[in-house]
Amino acid sequence: MGMVGGGRGAFIGAVHRMAARLDGEIELVAGCFSSDPAKSKLSGADFFLDPARVYGTYEEMARAEAALPPDQRIDFVSIVTRNNTHFAVAKTFLEAGFHVVCDKPLCFTRKEGLKLREVVRRTGRVFALTHNYTGYPMVKEAREWVRAGKLGRIIKVVAEYPQGYAIAALETARDGAISNWRMDPQVAGVSNCMGDIGTHAHNLVRYITGLEVEEICAELSTFIPGRPLDDDGNCLVRFSGGAKGIIYASQVSNGDENNLNIRVYGTKGGLEWHQENPNELVFKRADTPPAISRRGNGYLSAAAQANTRTPFAHPEGFIEAFANVYRAAGTAIADAVAGRKPPKAGYDFPTIEDGLAGMAFIETVVKSSKAGAKWVKWPRD
Amino acid sequence: MGMVGGGRGAFIGAVHRMAARLDGEIELVAGCFSSDPAKSKLSGADFFLDPARVYGTYEEMARAEAALPPDQRIDFVSIVTRNNTHFAVAKTFLEAGFHVVCDKPLCFTRKEGLKLREVVRRTGRVFALTHNYTGYPMVKEAREWVRAGKLGRIIKVVAEYPQGYAIAALETARDGAISNWRMDPQVAGVSNCMGDIGTHAHNLVRYITGLEVEEICAELSTFIPGRPLDDDGNCLVRFSGGAKGIIYASQVSNGDENNLNIRVYGTKGGLEWHQENPNELVFKRADTPPAISRRGNGYLSAAAQANTRTPFAHPEGFIEAFANVYRAAGTAIADAVAGRKPPKAGYDFPTIEDGLAGMAFIETVVKSSKAGAKWVKWPRD
Amino acid sequence: MGMVGGGRGAFIGAVHRMAARLDGEIELVAGCFSSDPAKSKLSGADFFLDPARVYGTYEEMARAEAALPPDQRIDFVSIVTRNNTHFAVAKTFLEAGFHVVCDKPLCFTRKEGLKLREVVRRTGRVFALTHNYTGYPMVKEAREWVRAGKLGRIIKVVAEYPQGYAIAALETARDGAISNWRMDPQVAGVSNCMGDIGTHAHNLVRYITGLEVEEICAELSTFIPGRPLDDDGNCLVRFSGGAKGIIYASQVSNGDENNLNIRVYGTKGGLEWHQENPNELVFKRADTPPAISRRGNGYLSAAAQANTRTPFAHPEGFIEAFANVYRAAGTAIADAVAGRKPPKAGYDFPTIEDGLAGMAFIETVVKSSKAGAKWVKWPRD
Amino acid sequence: MGMVGGGRGAFIGAVHRMAARLDGEIELVAGCFSSDPAKSKLSGADFFLDPARVYGTYEEMARAEAALPPDQRIDFVSIVTRNNTHFAVAKTFLEAGFHVVCDKPLCFTRKEGLKLREVVRRTGRVFALTHNYTGYPMVKEAREWVRAGKLGRIIKVVAEYPQGYAIAALETARDGAISNWRMDPQVAGVSNCMGDIGTHAHNLVRYITGLEVEEICAELSTFIPGRPLDDDGNCLVRFSGGAKGIIYASQVSNGDENNLNIRVYGTKGGLEWHQENPNELVFKRADTPPAISRRGNGYLSAAAQANTRTPFAHPEGFIEAFANVYRAAGTAIADAVAGRKPPKAGYDFPTIEDGLAGMAFIETVVKSSKAGAKWVKWPRD
Repeated sequence: MGMVGGGRGAFIGAVHRMAARLDGEIELVAGCFSSDPAKSKLSGADFFLDPARVYGTYEEMARAEAALPPDQRIDFVSIVTRNNTHFAVAKTFLEAGFHVVCDKPLCFTRKEGLKLREVVRRTGRVFALTHNYTGYPMVKEAREWVRAGKLGRIIKVVAEYPQGYAIAALETARDGAISNWRMDPQVAGVSNCMGDIGTHAHNLVRYITGLEVEEICAELSTFIPGRPLDDDGNCLVRFSGGAKGIIYASQVSNGDENNLNIRVYGTKGGLEWHQENPNELVFKRADTPPAISRRGNGYLSAAAQANTRTPFAHPEGFIEAFANVYRAAGTAIADAVAGRKPPKAGYDFPTIEDGLAGMAFIETVVKSSKAGAKWVKWPRD
Repeated sequence: MGMVGGGRGAFIGAVHRMAARLDGEIELVAGCFSSDPAKSKLSGADFFLDPARVYGTYEEMARAEAALPPDQRIDFVSIVTRNNTHFAVAKTFLEAGFHVVCDKPLCFTRKEGLKLREVVRRTGRVFALTHNYTGYPMVKEAREWVRAGKLGRIIKVVAEYPQGYAIAALETARDGAISNWRMDPQVAGVSNCMGDIGTHAHNLVRYITGLEVEEICAELSTFIPGRPLDDDGNCLVRFSGGAKGIIYASQVSNGDENNLNIRVYGTKGGLEWHQENPNELVFKRADTPPAISRRGNGYLSAAAQANTRTPFAHPEGFIEAFANVYRAAGTAIADAVAGRKPPKAGYDFPTIEDGLAGMAFIETVVKSSKAGAKWVKWPRD
Repeated sequence: MGMVGGGRGAFIGAVHRMAARLDGEIELVAGCFSSDPAKSKLSGADFFLDPARVYGTYEEMARAEAALPPDQRIDFVSIVTRNNTHFAVAKTFLEAGFHVVCDKPLCFTRKEGLKLREVVRRTGRVFALTHNYTGYPMVKEAREWVRAGKLGRIIKVVAEYPQGYAIAALETARDGAISNWRMDPQVAGVSNCMGDIGTHAHNLVRYITGLEVEEICAELSTFIPGRPLDDDGNCLVRFSGGAKGIIYASQVSNGDENNLNIRVYGTKGGLEWHQENPNELVFKRADTPPAISRRGNGYLSAAAQANTRTPFAHPEGFIEAFANVYRAAGTAIADAVAGRKPPKAGYDFPTIEDGLAGMAFIETVVKSSKAGAKWVKWPRD
Repeated sequence: MGMVGGGRGAFIGAVHRMAARLDGEIELVAGCFSSDPAKSKLSGADFFLDPARVYGTYEEMARAEAALPPDQRIDFVSIVTRNNTHFAVAKTFLEAGFHVVCDKPLCFTRKEGLKLREVVRRTGRVFALTHNYTGYPMVKEAREWVRAGKLGRIIKVVAEYPQGYAIAALETARDGAISNWRMDPQVAGVSNCMGDIGTHAHNLVRYITGLEVEEICAELSTFIPGRPLDDDGNCLVRFSGGAKGIIYASQVSNGDENNLNIRVYGTKGGLEWHQENPNELVFKRADTPPAISRRGNGYLSAAAQANTRTPFAHPEGFIEAFANVYRAAGTAIADAVAGRKPPKAGYDFPTIEDGLAGMAFIETVVKSSKAGAKWVKWPRD
């Protein structure tokens, strides 16, 4: 694979590389790691790449790689740049014939996202979005439970994603660097907190329950003075079919780390999953002892077992979940490269449609909040 | 003390008696335990009462007890009847010169509550409401933290109270008896779920943070077909001073038991308390390990220590917390009976004002929900 | 009931009174609360007793109470004095015709205990020992599981009871008062830590599993300099029938509070219970998700349900468990007083036999440890 | 690197490869993956290796790799074969000039281990043993606490490692394959359970506390009929300097998965770490709220931070910990290859000395148990 963005010091680029590399089936061979060509070269050297394949611009990279013989060029590119460049980079590589793995959110605006969908459809390339939290085996197990009817009809969903790192910035200013571009509307888009992590919570709800939002009433807040975008948001949600929900995300929940949690309640049972303790999934129902399903056991669904690398209670974590997205996308890409048909059941990675749903989420909550926290319908197009 | 309601088989009456009795300072000596005089008599026998002081109606009881010499009659009455009778019973005893301990919610409507406040003010009697969850020592500790500024300025509050018992009724109908009167608008008032447990969540927020609601946007739902009142409700909350919050309660959260939780986030730190694990209170802040304060330790505030009966890790629970309300109210009553002045710091039990705030909560969320989940201002009078 | 010991400031006396009082069926009416008659009188006043029934010595109390008409005198006495006086006090009251509830350990030496058993047998009175941890509903549930064969044949047991309070004494000396008499061989007997809490761990193992010890290899230690008795002990255990186990207790496990835990493993399943989280009981077996049974639910055994006072997730704790011992003993005493036959299933409270097993435990571990941690057979007589 | 053992289907070989690969600094380029040359070839193809460097025997591999030019041959070999072959394979590669990473236990007997130490000393090559549990960042944090005196003088250690997988074999026989060779004394050595996992618990104690065993009293058991080696073992331990401890391990603890836990108690504080929840480390002391240090935070020691790849609450697990051993060993090997001096602080990976301590543990507990669970001195040579 090739990579755009993710040079020295970039957290998410390093995660993508570890995730891609973990199973020994994907190799990084080319990249444009920075908009600064010198930094890009240095990063390439860090990764032991052939200097000839470390590029100064992504356009040059797309061109040069496309000019290589098919068995030498990259099969796909991994895009780990900031939100406002996803569209252009993805479009360039798709049109140059490459498959794409892209960090979330999909792009800068939903309108851009709709255009990108056209490009994906037109080129027929694989497009995967790294909504990595759905890569956890026990999240897959949760989805299987819902699909199998173990919870009955879903009536209530609570998804929460409180973090506290931005509050530290308030006091110490030392996190300024981290949170900088996410708070810049020119780079991040119309939302910081809801775009960065609210979308993960929403994606998790969709993935597990299959429910689509019908209307949202959202109140976004900016508690850290001087910031142009939200650092906290609370949403009431009405889902198609009558389920109700709460989705909230925050970066000023002092002392919380990466506290993404979901609870789903149905007529036959409820489930509960906590990202900070990802190897467990709780099943609850009235009049039965709660049962804690644990990763790596033979009693789990095939989907959960297929996304596991170590035996029970040899904990797996964030990188392994991320690697599951890469593995599924990598399989689809390998099939496409080899001209194999996709399996009947399809592949299990987030697609352009998931990315568009994320953009719809961002734009709907911002619209609702700006209107004073009124109900806003989900866009239909 | 005397008791109105709470005869054979009534859960909450038994809890009140255990709570009152625990410290050996309050003795049940009279009662009207049922609107059915025969059942009242039988209940009185269960409790080893003098049959002469087991009454057929609460009016008779108030009259007869008031006619006894001061050193023989009850000092106060504990009212554990259904919501729609609280007002009349409380008024009767207050006007007959007795102090009152009353189960929550305060009464049937907020309007009734305002009238009751007049009676309390006029008679000068002690009136305590058993919002028992604030009786937990670690809840008192939480309040002390907020008061001492340990959390800084509060910016976000999340209070949740999911239960699942009503879902069982859906499937088995066996809980019908339990949930019956709470679902009857003639007895329970305008809300079931929010009146029964939502008020506890709201009361907990007020008690710990001292924040008052400014506006609420609430959506109540009835998921169990055929029920005239809500069994679930989600609220966005704006507090005076700018804090934001979520309060939700549910009786159809399948598999949850009595899952009352609160998280409070401030500029300097956050706290977390779980009613199902009540002996612990978590303090969190960015860049510091979370610290778990535990009941019974010398490092706790005087308020927490004063409300504890056993050493650390000899767990205390629901009854002990309930007993703390009785103990505080009992102290106030004993002071009043003895003609002692209240201590400067006052007493620590829920009052008529807390009851009125609860009625305001119920009526505001119902009003908001009926308007389609629009923002509704908190009543000011 | 009457009480011997437990005057002002005595922790365990207060617990006994709350436990006895909780259900409203036992009333404290007489006592000798201190070896100092003046202090005894003051304590009696604290408890609102008739001064005529507050005695200066336990011998006087036994005599005077026995001289009262049957319907006025106490039915039983609760003994909460120090270990070295249990025997004399219990013997006196048993021989005066009273039933006895006695704090653990049974007495000063096992030899004394054997004599006391003779007295109990001879007088035919009810004798209950407050091994309170077996009063927890979920401990009763655990026993039912073992009895019902849910775990199969038991092969391994691990019971641990680390506390850390004595370490604080090392540094601050402020706990001196608390730990004083327990460290005095003239008062406590041959062991401090193993006698005080090791016996609880051993009793819990016996109660849940029904297993009897065959041999023990124990190493007791005294980590706090200058103390004449043990403050820590580790034991390997061989049970009759082939099961193996570990029992350990400590009062110098810095930072632990009252961390009594038990795990029992059988051929068909395992269970786990933690005293600090007493409302849950875990069932585990290979290839099945662990299931967490929770107090107050309809799916529990009759024994667990009968020992519960509040609905699920209205936590119960230490006092309620203690009260279950009193309730069971109280039922036996009431039956005896009324001349009713015991129920076929018997009563569920710790007896003189449990007390003797506790004395055997203490003396065996001390013997083993003194021999350099060699295997010592369980006494058979 | 090259690999010996770990062909298709071998769990631990796959873990070693993922761990080695994770950071992108170690590449598998050669191997002898099975004693069956055909299977070795197939495995090599799975790993995309040059068929010329997939060997039929480890001797051939050592010879052929040594014959390659220095910049083309492997730098080190990773040995993931069964216990009884570690010695011969390691000796061969060390003497051929290669550095070695070896799975634990070190070898078949302690005597073999002493010989191997001679080879390591003589050749001057790097020798790392994958006691992977010490690779967890929070285990490193724990060691730093002890070193910094945060716990004071250590007085008590409890290390436990219950698993239950072997009990399933009893009932279903389906785990036969997994547990087969470990139960074969010709392959595994004198112990199954204590050799396989007891050594991990012992290693963890040594790593964190720095304490060395002085004497052990151990009772090993075989609960699964027909097995020639132990499947459970309980040990009392006396450490140099006066600390006491318990170490136990089991593979028949029904329902436990990989439940390695350690508690260390000192005069100033205690710590607690649970492998199944590896991102947290608890600090406890009397009179202070327990504090939960969490991986990825700035408040941790440099050692903990240097062994972390993702931000706080993006959970890391078993593979990442394993990769930390590879990373540290890889650094040492890279330094050796490049002729750089080791850093003053040395490297942080388990060495031949740790391996010998493990062999001493195995042989001491077996000796003690065979003598009827008597105290046996730790070997000194």
